[in-house]
Amino acid sequence: MRSHSSALSFPLLLRRRLLTTATHFHKPTAKMANVSDNSLRESLAEKISTIQTQGNVVRQLKASGAAKLEIETAVQALNALKLERSSIEAQIQAASGDSSASRDAFRQAVVNTLERRLFYIPSFKIYRGVAGLYDYGPPGCAVKSNVLAFWRQHFVLEENMLEVDCPCVTPEVVLKASGHVDKFTDLMVKDEKTGTCYRADHLLKDYCKEKLEKDLSMTAEKAADLKHVLAMLDDLTAEQLGAKIKEYGITAPDTKNPLSDPYPFNLMFQTSIGPSGISPGYMRPETAQGIFVNFKDLYYYNGNKLPFAAAQIGQAFRNEVIAPRQGLLRVREFTLAEIEHFVDPQDKSHPKFSEVANLEFLMFPRELQMSGQSAKKLQIGEAVSKGIVNNETLGYFIGRVYLFLTELGIDKQRLRFRQHLANEMAHYAADCWDAEIESSYGWIECVGIADRSAYDLRAHSDKSGVSLVAQEKYSEPREVEVTNNNTVNFTTLRFNTPVKYILDCGCKIVAALKLIVAPVKKELGLAFKGNQKIIVEALEAMDEKEAMEMKAALELKGEVEFLVCNLGKTVTIKKNMVSISKEKKKEHQRVFTPSVIEPSFGIGRIIYCLYEHSFYTRPSKTSDEQLNVFRFPPRVAPIKCTVFPLVQNEQYENVAKLISKSLTVAGVSHKIDITGTSIGKRYARTDELGVPFAITVDKTTSVTIRDRDSKNQVRVDVEKVASVVKEVTDGFKTWADILNEYEIHTSESADD
Amino acid sequence: MRSHSSALSFPLLLRRRLLTTATHFHKPTAKMANVSDNSLRESLAEKISTIQTQGNVVRQLKASGAAKLEIETAVQALNALKLERSSIEAQIQAASGDSSASRDAFRQAVVNTLERRLFYIPSFKIYRGVAGLYDYGPPGCAVKSNVLAFWRQHFVLEENMLEVDCPCVTPEVVLKASGHVDKFTDLMVKDEKTGTCYRADHLLKDYCKEKLEKDLSMTAEKAADLKHVLAMLDDLTAEQLGAKIKEYGITAPDTKNPLSDPYPFNLMFQTSIGPSGISPGYMRPETAQGIFVNFKDLYYYNGNKLPFAAAQIGQAFRNEVIAPRQGLLRVREFTLAEIEHFVDPQDKSHPKFSEVANLEFLMFPRELQMSGQSAKKLQIGEAVSKGIVNNETLGYFIGRVYLFLTELGIDKQRLRFRQHLANEMAHYAADCWDAEIESSYGWIECVGIADRSAYDLRAHSDKSGVSLVAQEKYSEPREVEVTNNNTVNFTTLRFNTPVKYILDCGCKIVAALKLIVAPVKKELGLAFKGNQKIIVEALEAMDEKEAMEMKAALELKGEVEFLVCNLGKTVTIKKNMVSISKEKKKEHQRVFTPSVIEPSFGIGRIIYCLYEHSFYTRPSKTSDEQLNVFRFPPRVAPIKCTVFPLVQNEQYENVAKLISKSLTVAGVSHKIDITGTSIGKRYARTDELGVPFAITVDKTTSVTIRDRDSKNQVRVDVEKVASVVKEVTDGFKTWADILNEYEIHTSESADD
Repeated sequence: MRSHSSALSFPLLLRRRLLTTATHFHKPTAKMANVSDNSLRESLAEKISTIQTQGNVVRQLKASGAAKLEIETAVQALNALKLERSSIEAQIQAASGDSSASRDAFRQAVVNTLERRLFYIPSFKIYRGVAGLYDYGPPGCAVKSNVLAFWRQHFVLEENMLEVDCPCVTPEVVLKASGHVDKFTDLMVKDEKTGTCYRADHLLKDYCKEKLEKDLSMTAEKAADLKHVLAMLDDLTAEQLGAKIKEYGITAPDTKNPLSDPYPFNLMFQTSIGPSGISPGYMRPETAQGIFVNFKDLYYYNGNKLPFAAAQIGQAFRNEVIAPRQGLLRVREFTLAEIEHFVDPQDKSHPKFSEVANLEFLMFPRELQMSGQSAKKLQIGEAVSKGIVNNETLGYFIGRVYLFLTELGIDKQRLRFRQHLANEMAHYAADCWDAEIESSYGWIECVGIADRSAYDLRAHSDKSGVSLVAQEKYSEPREVEVTNNNTVNFTTLRFNTPVKYILDCGCKIVAALKLIVAPVKKELGLAFKGNQKIIVEALEAMDEKEAMEMKAALELKGEVEFLVCNLGKTVTIKKNMVSISKEKKKEHQRVFTPSVIEPSFGIGRIIYCLYEHSFYTRPSKTSDEQLNVFRFPPRVAPIKCTVFPLVQNEQYENVAKLISKSLTVAGVSHKIDITGTSIGKRYARTDELGVPFAITVDKTTSVTIRDRDSKNQVRVDVEKVASVVKEVTDGFKTWADILNEYEIHTSESADD
Repeated sequence: MRSHSSALSFPLLLRRRLLTTATHFHKPTAKMANVSDNSLRESLAEKISTIQTQGNVVRQLKASGAAKLEIETAVQALNALKLERSSIEAQIQAASGDSSASRDAFRQAVVNTLERRLFYIPSFKIYRGVAGLYDYGPPGCAVKSNVLAFWRQHFVLEENMLEVDCPCVTPEVVLKASGHVDKFTDLMVKDEKTGTCYRADHLLKDYCKEKLEKDLSMTAEKAADLKHVLAMLDDLTAEQLGAKIKEYGITAPDTKNPLSDPYPFNLMFQTSIGPSGISPGYMRPETAQGIFVNFKDLYYYNGNKLPFAAAQIGQAFRNEVIAPRQGLLRVREFTLAEIEHFVDPQDKSHPKFSEVANLEFLMFPRELQMSGQSAKKLQIGEAVSKGIVNNETLGYFIGRVYLFLTELGIDKQRLRFRQHLANEMAHYAADCWDAEIESSYGWIECVGIADRSAYDLRAHSDKSGVSLVAQEKYSEPREVEVTNNNTVNFTTLRFNTPVKYILDCGCKIVAALKLIVAPVKKELGLAFKGNQKIIVEALEAMDEKEAMEMKAALELKGEVEFLVCNLGKTVTIKKNMVSISKEKKKEHQRVFTPSVIEPSFGIGRIIYCLYEHSFYTRPSKTSDEQLNVFRFPPRVAPIKCTVFPLVQNEQYENVAKLISKSLTVAGVSHKIDITGTSIGKRYARTDELGVPFAITVDKTTSVTIRDRDSKNQVRVDVEKVASVVKEVTDGFKTWADILNEYEIHTSESADD
């Protein structure tokens, strides 16, 4: 719970933006469990059909008396497919509604492997650690750096984005403008004796859940009340929360001591800039503000042209009240990668939309959620043309995010794009979609893609007094009425012209009509003689409303009764006595605040989900144990390849060192292992790190390359091996290409 | 000034480590100015000789009636060389002792270009900024990310380092152990009326300098006093600083108000972890501590083998009292890249040392500094073998740092390795060298390379109670005396054995001799009869010193007088009556705290120096103005190449777009510019961003590639152009190779 004000206010949007990286898990409903189950069952059906096909291939090869080698390879592939089938079956079991225990067991297996192999380490462990802080150990650090490199390639480079790098330390004024200083809070209660803090909503939730589960004697009425509280939890104010805690007699979980009233706790890490102690600052809770405050310079850098996107990768900080059970998913410091795509609000088309329009994936629009249905496959092109997704640019980014995640190795069947419900969005947001990935914790929000309209630029423009706008130059000047105008030049409006404006909720500018009232002195003189001057003054003194009424009446009836106070009487004004018109002016350009479309990536969450989606086990040949494997695609794998001399032998070791050198020159990260451990054990060790390829030195002129998942091997010349591995890890070739090009190697002794 | 205790204490080392990234500039002495001058003059001499050679080539070509094209190319190369000569001449002028004005002008030209092209931006500019915080704009961000990628390739990948990624938020206990909480301070004085803060040493320095420059009536005695203060500035205590400020009557510079006494201000940004306010934390002032606290896990990950290195790239924070004039060189938040290479203190050889041993570069050993000489060229192999550099591993890293910096584009002539003077190093440090780069600010410390011995691991071991040690297993057990032992197992020492130890300054462990005193009861009985028991007890009760004296006396004279208090008299003890020996035990392994060798890189400083070393100007062909160029090597350049249609024309634009696509596929960052601006202006615009290659579309089948610095052009087929640019930007080919392989293109209209 990030805010406690009315459903459509600003803080809700704030909350939504920030959810991307730390809080909020959708309660797994039966519906959602079904979706997941369905998608896994689909995967299983696909796998079973592939196994049948491969089975037929093997039978045909045998029947046609094919070469032994060819048959063996086909059998190996078949066995690999069967293992994958068992893995999916295990996942279905784990994911099924009733077996949260086996979900937990699956997660435990993943997390144990991750910790044991130092993918991550609780930070400052020798000092008993700090909840919510984690280190990436060597393989985790490599995975992270690969994910970020791919993000840069996929977004910054391919879309020509302007990348910036701003500090984490942020002065208060910036976060005051963005709303974080006032609204970025959780409601907290304190144990009145020990001072221990708890999140008020968590305590209430836990109480309700436990009651509903365990108190079987409860009346139906009472149960309905508790369910209602659970449903309303995110919308309760501090007072309402406090009242419920009192009503239910909830006490501190550890001590049973009474609790304080709920009060807001700001989630930013506060500090002080400079030695005087009078300049408060915060560690940024997101990277986006650094982009907004630089809009003017970036727009200029882009040749004063829209649209353009700026991007930033960096640390963000959130001082969670308590770091709960979700491990790597809820942390106090994390890496964000954010894009702010600035676009003309009148034209949100995207020139490259056609490149993604045919992509089809699981989408979960608002309407399906409201009517209790499940996510379904939609073409993004169709979703935009039907108005389900608000505009092309938003749709383009949804498509690009889909490509990014699936190319990283996220399972398509466990990825969906969920639209925000109306009450989840701020009033100014045009549309928001979250990329949610299913993990053992349920559906996790990993990327938020929001059309935030002009909100952020306006907020900073307002606070700083610096106009953050774009211009569209007209080829011909246009005559326009000065009238209601959302896109009027903000600075001009505020400082240079007499046009009235209203700042509505700090964000919406309404420029009222500007009217020109021009009394026709000659006619008035003819009609009213000596009173002419007083009447002229009275006409000119009309306010907008009066003038508009007179204009309407004159147009309708040709004349109107007009009370002149200074004369103490009413006179009849005719159409020819006054001209009332809207002001018109020639404009050479349109000045407007751009809209921003913001895809925001929680890198740590994506990586954790990737770990779960990549993990599987397969039986060992030599023992009863299950061997762990991460099936990372080469671009993600922490190390691309290992080099093993088959046996301890100086000649083989020298070849291994030679290969290692050529891999270094080719820029392929690798590990050389010249210990005498059995080759099977060495394979198992590196499978567990997700290393996709292993080079085994069993001759001095040629060596074998083994593929992690299929365990197929090919034989390649020593001189060529580095470039072959490079091609397949850089994605220029697939393993299937390699199998086609090189001699397939079968070995009795090889795999464990 | 980071510390104010005695010269050899811990904080000095702390200071030295941290200097890498924020403070401390060596006062430019005449000596140093000479060095710089000399090195530039050497560059100039080299350049002049190359120009002569190239001049001869041109003459010969003309004489031999060579092809027009060949002559033109040679002339172009000659002209490029001449421009470089003028640039060096300008730098000599700028660097010369008297022309600090032209140094400032050079810097201003660089900084103006950097700010105008958004290499960096003062952070939060629309809110009037925060001193000491900068954003990297698009080209700066790209340069930084290229520098870091090369750092990863050069160190992490090539040396198989274990990279980790730890949080910035750090609990107090960790920085208490490292000494930062108590010692990481600057001395500050406050304007007693306004509260404005100043660094005490800065005020004193400014006062002394101004006096010396401007007060010509000063006595020689007074001048000597001021010079002495300047020389001692870094070593003054708070009291001494305060006394001098009083003595000289120094007041607040802006208001002339009186100043407070100096008091220490901790330079870390403080915050609070969690909601209770009782867990203080800090934003890390360096990344190294995150590695030290993980030593145990990393050692295990490395198969319990030494040596190994861990590395970390990340943000570090320093709440400077005031952000002074050095712009990008002294900032409050910066990127560090640190390596901790753990090594057996008894074996600091390095297996790859021979790969760097022949490198020769400017070194500035302690002895040369003390005797007032200047830095000189030394072979690193020789420096190690002569003992100038303490050990091979330290020497290896010095060599690798040299390669890293020069391959980035740092001028060899303006790079030196300066050894710390004895009083700059902590007592436990074995040796320290700084890579210093000369800039318009003088010699800037950009990389520190220190052998920190076992200090850091011991400090954390001591504070956490967790042993951070390595083992060397013996193939055969060895019999060893339990004696003075720096490498004794720390945990065993503290918790399991009765061996005495002393913690000296919290870091040095001295295990005293353990003696076994074994009275020979039979002989004592024969000699002393009924007193035997009392004498046995007295012998066994001897303390270590007494026992050692008796042992020595017995070995020397065969007998000794021994006062037995309980008998009230002296007895004669003979050699056969007691055996005194050192305890021996069989050891199967040696347990020791590894030494750490730490290369620590201030990335922002390196990048700033790189900007200065890469910047030059050349005259425009069409106007009087000077055009700015950054001569970044391709790997550093923010954008590798631009694509320009020569004239606005749909056919050419389509070709340009096609080339842009193929560059994207090849992963070459580029920019396409289809504006109608003259080609010369477009070249000038991208020269100023340091873009090394420009592709100009002047036909539909083939295009030209222009090299930024020589302005030479070659003609290449459209299909081939992306791969040609990729080869040369990836470093697989040089521009000279390209000139050899492809048709040289001469154009009348081309360059501005």
